[in-house]
Amino acid sequence: MSETSARVWTAALIVIGDEILSGRTQDANIAYLAKWLNVQGIRLKAARVVPDEMGAIAEAVNALKPPAHDYLFTTGGIGPTHDDITVDAIAAALGVPVVMHPEAEAALRAYYGDRITDARLRMARVPQGADLIPNPVSGAPGIRLGEIFIMAGVPKITQGMLAGLEGKLRGGRPVLSRSVGAWIGESAVAELLRDTERAFEDVQIGSYPFWREGRVGANFVVRSPDPRALAACAEALMTGLRAAGVEPVDGEI
Amino acid sequence: MSETSARVWTAALIVIGDEILSGRTQDANIAYLAKWLNVQGIRLKAARVVPDEMGAIAEAVNALKPPAHDYLFTTGGIGPTHDDITVDAIAAALGVPVVMHPEAEAALRAYYGDRITDARLRMARVPQGADLIPNPVSGAPGIRLGEIFIMAGVPKITQGMLAGLEGKLRGGRPVLSRSVGAWIGESAVAELLRDTERAFEDVQIGSYPFWREGRVGANFVVRSPDPRALAACAEALMTGLRAAGVEPVDGEI
Repeated sequence: MSETSARVWTAALIVIGDEILSGRTQDANIAYLAKWLNVQGIRLKAARVVPDEMGAIAEAVNALKPPAHDYLFTTGGIGPTHDDITVDAIAAALGVPVVMHPEAEAALRAYYGDRITDARLRMARVPQGADLIPNPVSGAPGIRLGEIFIMAGVPKITQGMLAGLEGKLRGGRPVLSRSVGAWIGESAVAELLRDTERAFEDVQIGSYPFWREGRVGANFVVRSPDPRALAACAEALMTGLRAAGVEPVDGEI
Repeated sequence: MSETSARVWTAALIVIGDEILSGRTQDANIAYLAKWLNVQGIRLKAARVVPDEMGAIAEAVNALKPPAHDYLFTTGGIGPTHDDITVDAIAAALGVPVVMHPEAEAALRAYYGDRITDARLRMARVPQGADLIPNPVSGAPGIRLGEIFIMAGVPKITQGMLAGLEGKLRGGRPVLSRSVGAWIGESAVAELLRDTERAFEDVQIGSYPFWREGRVGANFVVRSPDPRALAACAEALMTGLRAAGVEPVDGEI
């Protein structure tokens, strides 16, 4: 039995932020990452929520980083303010210095233009040796250091960063996707999307709304490593959209 | 400086359940417990999500139990099925045997009557030396072992158990409450409740719907350790209810 076929690849997540532990913000990243990892063929085995404190972050990183799990994700604490200490805490835990990443700095300067500040440039600081994870939503990139992924805390941004990692993790199954477009607002079909996703194993439905030619629409991207589940889920979604009174397009609009 | 006035009392939470780590269920207990603890004057400092595995549960219990934190809460894994192993894992971690609790057994027999089964009687098993936490929603009680609180995973049940612990934790501030009743369905004012709660620090609003004399109504219980925040929040809630077209009652209906 070869290692690659039998072994279960695992991941851990550290959710960083006082706002989650105070109850002010309801975490959405644990559930989203869990489903995203399932689709990649990787299993989330542990999640911890820690406060914005160097010691607590570093302790969790040391407990959960490879080889404890194949992958470690963190969300939160990579913004421009004084309490955004994730990069420093992870660098300290790993014993590497923090450096400015030239590409991140260029991306931030391009995004903010005249509005660039020292605080915003903080978001170009990375543990030495890190690569960037593109951020399709705002200017500040995520950070990849080997098998450690340092992501934003805002769910929409986290999800955008994960979309860029789709199918790229070693050990994961190849992910198939299929798009269904419709001229309908995503909020009108939020329950349909949720129920359709729940009805199938290892399937995730992403919703990408747009506004074009004065009309709202959305592309729904069904993802799964299983071609049969993918086809069945896409069919169920199209049937559901028709029942909701809109004729879907089989493919992206 | 006396210990009781200066010291920050802390708590940790272990969320137990494969369904959270698979993304199938969105956790709601971290945020609810965090807010509930704030109202008691206790700070949630750590939360972990662990799978339904003896080793993972026991490791988290040993890391987070007193004296690491003043209080440890767990949610999940105390139901009747084979994967409900929280009691066994905690007992193993603490090195105490699992025993049948006579009161819990009596409560389960009273609740289920003829429908009692061996599986349901599993829910009367507790680590030796434990007391029960009343469950106002269904038959199976929670379990208190010193400063460790073993709670249900279903949010409505967890919340009912927490209501019974209100103001009873050593180190917590005394909690004040005030009821506002209204003949309106809680779903019609869900956003009002949420926004009103958010507008005040250290205030929590519980919603207790009822159906009486053929009409729906609800009592909203505002809780806070701060009498001024309590009064201001209750006033804001009554103003909001009037704006929603219903005349509130200052007190319980």
